[in-house]
Amino acid sequence: MDERDFMKRAISISREMMLGLKGGPFGAVVVKDGEIVAEGHNQVTTANDPTAHAEVVAIREACRVLGTFNLEGCEIYASCEPCPMCLSAIYWARLGRIYYGNSRLDAAGIGFDDEFLYVEVAKPIEKREIPTVRIMAEEALGVFEEWEAMPDKVRY
Amino acid sequence: MDERDFMKRAISISREMMLGLKGGPFGAVVVKDGEIVAEGHNQVTTANDPTAHAEVVAIREACRVLGTFNLEGCEIYASCEPCPMCLSAIYWARLGRIYYGNSRLDAAGIGFDDEFLYVEVAKPIEKREIPTVRIMAEEALGVFEEWEAMPDKVRY
Repeated sequence: MDERDFMKRAISISREMMLGLKGGPFGAVVVKDGEIVAEGHNQVTTANDPTAHAEVVAIREACRVLGTFNLEGCEIYASCEPCPMCLSAIYWARLGRIYYGNSRLDAAGIGFDDEFLYVEVAKPIEKREIPTVRIMAEEALGVFEEWEAMPDKVRY
Repeated sequence: MDERDFMKRAISISREMMLGLKGGPFGAVVVKDGEIVAEGHNQVTTANDPTAHAEVVAIREACRVLGTFNLEGCEIYASCEPCPMCLSAIYWARLGRIYYGNSRLDAAGIGFDDEFLYVEVAKPIEKREIPTVRIMAEEALGVFEEWEAMPDKVRY
């Protein structure tokens, strides 16, 4: 299988799950050493989980299958450009490469407004649409100081 | 309970779970109508899930408890400023307000580099650290066109 086959699978998942009323028209696969190790489809509405975008679902499944929280050496194929949530998840998972089909503009064209999120994430906190308030900074920082002092922590 | 009590609980979760070696020093609670409906703690390393940040865990749990993918009318209290993944998840979940304790700078100070993600997400695709390639755009777009034409789709 080559990169077109993997993308064909991601697109095929997006179509199957959409037609089966399983969620939005988005699919993704995670590939390691030339083989698909996990697949995901959008299931926001069917699983009642706003974080269940195709990429997040595929990443979680790949980590489960491989028994790791680090997907170094893996690639992700997404039928649509990952939104900022999924893109960030891809970085946290340490995936090595992203392939995508539809662009964020294509997504906006059918009512999925990722662009709004790019704008919001880049804003300073006090300018964001969601009111955001800092409280109890000192108490919170105490825990970080304890973390620093812990000898047996697992870094990631 | 008031906002300080809710934040106190988020911070307390972050400390308990850290000391119990259950994950990084991060906790969050989702509040609706003055009551905590869900709690979350970081479990990236213990659940082998790079998306299992405290906020994402709390959002998923709140949606499960309330039976919805839409947390309008809810607020989230996070012991640390949400990273771009969690912030995006908060927008997708339609939470109405964010309270946080530690800042992203505090997080960077103990080795959690969210700043890198803010920079990457804002970059044009071709400048990002993760190589990102668009392929099979036409085939992918076909599914979006089918979505547009579907009469019985659930929008979100």
